[in-house]
Amino acid sequence: MTKTRVAVIGASGYTGEELVRLLLAHPGVDLVAVTSRQLAGKSLTKVFPRFAQNKKAIGLKFSNPDAKQLASDVRIAFLALPHGLAAEFAKPLLSAGARVLDLSADFRIKDASVYREFYGQDHPAPDLLGQSVYGLPEIYRDQIRDAQLVACPGCYPTSILIPLRPLIRRKAVDRQSILVASMSGVSGAGRKVEADYLFVECNESVRPYGVPKHRHLSEIEQELSILAGEQMVIQFTPHLVPVNRGIVTTIYANIASNVVNIDPAIIFSGAYGEEPFVRLLDETHLPDTKHVVGTNFVDIAWRIDQRTNRLVLMSALDNIVKGASGQAVQCMNLMLGLPETAGLL
Amino acid sequence: MTKTRVAVIGASGYTGEELVRLLLAHPGVDLVAVTSRQLAGKSLTKVFPRFAQNKKAIGLKFSNPDAKQLASDVRIAFLALPHGLAAEFAKPLLSAGARVLDLSADFRIKDASVYREFYGQDHPAPDLLGQSVYGLPEIYRDQIRDAQLVACPGCYPTSILIPLRPLIRRKAVDRQSILVASMSGVSGAGRKVEADYLFVECNESVRPYGVPKHRHLSEIEQELSILAGEQMVIQFTPHLVPVNRGIVTTIYANIASNVVNIDPAIIFSGAYGEEPFVRLLDETHLPDTKHVVGTNFVDIAWRIDQRTNRLVLMSALDNIVKGASGQAVQCMNLMLGLPETAGLL
Amino acid sequence: MTKTRVAVIGASGYTGEELVRLLLAHPGVDLVAVTSRQLAGKSLTKVFPRFAQNKKAIGLKFSNPDAKQLASDVRIAFLALPHGLAAEFAKPLLSAGARVLDLSADFRIKDASVYREFYGQDHPAPDLLGQSVYGLPEIYRDQIRDAQLVACPGCYPTSILIPLRPLIRRKAVDRQSILVASMSGVSGAGRKVEADYLFVECNESVRPYGVPKHRHLSEIEQELSILAGEQMVIQFTPHLVPVNRGIVTTIYANIASNVVNIDPAIIFSGAYGEEPFVRLLDETHLPDTKHVVGTNFVDIAWRIDQRTNRLVLMSALDNIVKGASGQAVQCMNLMLGLPETAGLL
Amino acid sequence: MTKTRVAVIGASGYTGEELVRLLLAHPGVDLVAVTSRQLAGKSLTKVFPRFAQNKKAIGLKFSNPDAKQLASDVRIAFLALPHGLAAEFAKPLLSAGARVLDLSADFRIKDASVYREFYGQDHPAPDLLGQSVYGLPEIYRDQIRDAQLVACPGCYPTSILIPLRPLIRRKAVDRQSILVASMSGVSGAGRKVEADYLFVECNESVRPYGVPKHRHLSEIEQELSILAGEQMVIQFTPHLVPVNRGIVTTIYANIASNVVNIDPAIIFSGAYGEEPFVRLLDETHLPDTKHVVGTNFVDIAWRIDQRTNRLVLMSALDNIVKGASGQAVQCMNLMLGLPETAGLL
Repeated sequence: MTKTRVAVIGASGYTGEELVRLLLAHPGVDLVAVTSRQLAGKSLTKVFPRFAQNKKAIGLKFSNPDAKQLASDVRIAFLALPHGLAAEFAKPLLSAGARVLDLSADFRIKDASVYREFYGQDHPAPDLLGQSVYGLPEIYRDQIRDAQLVACPGCYPTSILIPLRPLIRRKAVDRQSILVASMSGVSGAGRKVEADYLFVECNESVRPYGVPKHRHLSEIEQELSILAGEQMVIQFTPHLVPVNRGIVTTIYANIASNVVNIDPAIIFSGAYGEEPFVRLLDETHLPDTKHVVGTNFVDIAWRIDQRTNRLVLMSALDNIVKGASGQAVQCMNLMLGLPETAGLL
Repeated sequence: MTKTRVAVIGASGYTGEELVRLLLAHPGVDLVAVTSRQLAGKSLTKVFPRFAQNKKAIGLKFSNPDAKQLASDVRIAFLALPHGLAAEFAKPLLSAGARVLDLSADFRIKDASVYREFYGQDHPAPDLLGQSVYGLPEIYRDQIRDAQLVACPGCYPTSILIPLRPLIRRKAVDRQSILVASMSGVSGAGRKVEADYLFVECNESVRPYGVPKHRHLSEIEQELSILAGEQMVIQFTPHLVPVNRGIVTTIYANIASNVVNIDPAIIFSGAYGEEPFVRLLDETHLPDTKHVVGTNFVDIAWRIDQRTNRLVLMSALDNIVKGASGQAVQCMNLMLGLPETAGLL
Repeated sequence: MTKTRVAVIGASGYTGEELVRLLLAHPGVDLVAVTSRQLAGKSLTKVFPRFAQNKKAIGLKFSNPDAKQLASDVRIAFLALPHGLAAEFAKPLLSAGARVLDLSADFRIKDASVYREFYGQDHPAPDLLGQSVYGLPEIYRDQIRDAQLVACPGCYPTSILIPLRPLIRRKAVDRQSILVASMSGVSGAGRKVEADYLFVECNESVRPYGVPKHRHLSEIEQELSILAGEQMVIQFTPHLVPVNRGIVTTIYANIASNVVNIDPAIIFSGAYGEEPFVRLLDETHLPDTKHVVGTNFVDIAWRIDQRTNRLVLMSALDNIVKGASGQAVQCMNLMLGLPETAGLL
Repeated sequence: MTKTRVAVIGASGYTGEELVRLLLAHPGVDLVAVTSRQLAGKSLTKVFPRFAQNKKAIGLKFSNPDAKQLASDVRIAFLALPHGLAAEFAKPLLSAGARVLDLSADFRIKDASVYREFYGQDHPAPDLLGQSVYGLPEIYRDQIRDAQLVACPGCYPTSILIPLRPLIRRKAVDRQSILVASMSGVSGAGRKVEADYLFVECNESVRPYGVPKHRHLSEIEQELSILAGEQMVIQFTPHLVPVNRGIVTTIYANIASNVVNIDPAIIFSGAYGEEPFVRLLDETHLPDTKHVVGTNFVDIAWRIDQRTNRLVLMSALDNIVKGASGQAVQCMNLMLGLPETAGLL
């Protein structure tokens, strides 16, 4: 079987490195290009010693090709670039016929004015917004199969949308009542060399940030609104905690006043019983990042608080895998007609 | 000046050790007894090498006296014992005339049936509940001065009650709308030798626990209800994060519908401008445990979310200091008529 | 192709869990039994949620069979048991015809009196000592292929023997001059529920232990002596550092007085150029546990100090993989005539 | 009593911040100036919220005065600057009559050519080298009292020189046989914003660095040579471990061939029995950074290995306190005729 040729554009950061790891081990694709302006010319195994014994990795060098060149060489390009830059790369790749999985925020927001509000700059390719598909297979599986351009979701949105989706769809919770607190490991900030992310500043530190209007709110509310069929606004506070990887999200929602005897176990089994990467924890377990780190799973638990008539939803995932690169590979599997779990279990 | 003789009962755990540290350095008291069934006979400096060069510590040995003996020897006894056991020690100490600062949950709950509901056992000394004072100086300063028995608050309650108090008092927020997410360091579990608290199980792990009805809810709701003058019920989820010490709490509350132009800066300055251990952060800072660990401060910040008409309150404190032992010393200072900050700055 | 049936005896600890992970993913074997006295009856996926979506794991339950039963069912048994207990299990398994890979210390020491000296008890099966093969493929590859009983090395010995072996063999270093300092993550202590390994006791702590005569010295010196053809005694100090996994070892050795122009690069390339799991770092890199954790690699670097005429050797490995379970699987591959890297890359 | 006016030059890094902490709490001095080019104009309490409630801190602003101005204002200036820059500041301060405690490497090395060899640049003020005193009170107490210019030792040197000194002096160990392995927390690298010190790069990582010729070797060997009365060369390897603060050092030394029945307990008690900051651990304890972090203590233990006739010495200290700022304050106390422990216990 001929394997599909794929490239990772911007492979120097944490999500790029994880894409490389997943794609090197993937049975259905050949990783033929890894690019980085800054690392161009260096061999992959020197930069990332963990791949040093990997036969597929040994030949690879970081390159800095132009988009046309690339598009003639690969069928799939992953963009692991900062927002703004991603859109610039996507345009020529798409024109040249490549299919693009973008891990930045550039194609997640349908509305260029919302993009400007949350990202503080004009959208670099507003004409492409209409054709991008939000890369959350648990919601958009069918559209992803045929997509030319997939906008892979952020890590926080994945941890929030998956638990909320079946409840919003069924109108089981009051849509004005949703409040979220998330805790993320430091790799969520990327490989940014800033004082805030130094070891001594993060270790033995817990802190909220991005209050009250973190950028990911834009895509979370967009997707919730689509699910609800009406504009939704939620409360969201991220916190930085001293782990390398992992997000825990805790969501509060009032049970809708007209709902009696809600049984979340039935709702979640119905929605996710067949999903390969959603794990529903039983009543004796709560999510813990250490059980999902390094995997593409999202673990979900729920509790009803009878005293307040609220649902407490909790999820855990690896922000670099299900929150980024693993999810992108899951989307790619759909796009290529491969088993959805290929290279991910 | 004669110094007051004090004892720490149950000095083998983290809060007991911190009490020892604070009391050894305190200018107004003499720590004359440290007790522990298990460590009786050992010298303090062998068990806690950090005190090895401290002249006051050098003579001290762990002992296991009976309460009468103790009461004849000291004016103040700190109880750093498990709940249940604390009440047993408190009774004879109080009878014999000692003043007691209890760091367990035993005297925090006014209603013995609530104690039974949350702690799963009958209260061991229900007759004493009426006379205990909740040891949060920011609320009960005057009562603490004269108290014979002070029930020092839990770490989570301190991090929640201090930010909420002025808003509840002023009816600035909707009392049904309060939701809390807290993150605590592992010392909050005490020096318990259980698999859940092993290094490898906690490091690189973030997890909610005690959902939906953590024991501290009982005292939080009791105190909020007293402030509100009506029964209050809130939502609360604690999370365990891999730091030794520190709690960050994020609180959501709807701004009351009849309140316009709320200015939390004015409310908080009014309430806490003179408080020695409450620090109000400005609009460019958010709480971070690393700025309070090792201190008796609680740092508070707030943001109004115009989109949702909610207040987001955030606090940080050291669970062993302002959340336990430091607060107990602050209470003791009040009881002894010493400067409230003695030994704490 | 029929797959070989294998069992993990004592699968509740960290090395047992890692064996399960590696064997579930291994293309050449079927993991048909996981045993634990304490967990018997529980399903594997409940105890270790990380395996929850793994089809091969779903049917597995912890059992507590007797050795004969087991031996009739599997061809290979891994023992992940405390020393002493391991030997008791090995005897009947071997008698019944199973091949045994023991991860404890029980069959590493050839001399029962040395075992008694270092482990403080009589050896439970001294008659088996003669037939066990030390499971370090880089030294004993051929003997492992045919072994009935393999004694997998400790984590520290692996990190010390692999770098030292080619130098000892070639008499390149003075055999009286070898001094070692190692740093290990906390999983090296196993899943032992002791106060010393609580999060708060290990986090923000660095400490030597087992000075001067750690148990692993017995096997290190035994193997070095075999390589040298004469009795060798070394200095070794382990340190506990706050990471979950990983060992870094730094070794000092005087260059032998009759050796001039030593070129370690040539020596190491000669010895390990073809080894699949030994990576020789170039002159710009030093070992770092983060590059080997989760892998079966051992990374090696060296520097000559011209000022002192000493060699500084440094290695890094994952104490649970190359230091325990991965190495055991590598040995199993040899025993079964499978590619040595099967299931390990 | 009039307090001595002191300044911290370069107060933005970790050692500068710790100096500020210690000096604000010090009973004998007034901290009247904190300087930083980069932070000039900002109030101290904004930059370091931990000092926010400290009355002495409230008035302080970072400034950027010239040296003459400063010298007219203070009697003591601490330099917490990068090497090279420190010497530039020291010159005019000394000329103007201030006494200087330099925490950089600039005045530690007596020989400008050694400085050039290890620091890669010409010494900026070689004429001052003769007058500087090495600020290790355990060795140079008397000279420090009268010094105009004190060169505070590095953190590694302190952890090595204190345990070795009495043994070298008494010729108890073979001077050619000294090998050292040290492990340091990440604050040892300062507040340097480099990728190597990002949380994700340091957490779950252990690594040697600076092999074989770390800069601190220059001062270690200089001081050992002075003690020995002959040129000494040692082996030294530092390792980076994921803690904020703390150094553990393990030293190996052959017992000198003409020494019989060495009793290190007697040697160390003789040398350090009266030292206020050296703690000699008993035979049941080994050093642990968590017992010294936040203090000015250095903890020392030793073991004789009868098998090898070597001494194993181990020490632990806080690299920012006894390894830097605390030691500088200890020196200042000597210079001012204050009790040596003032502000440090």
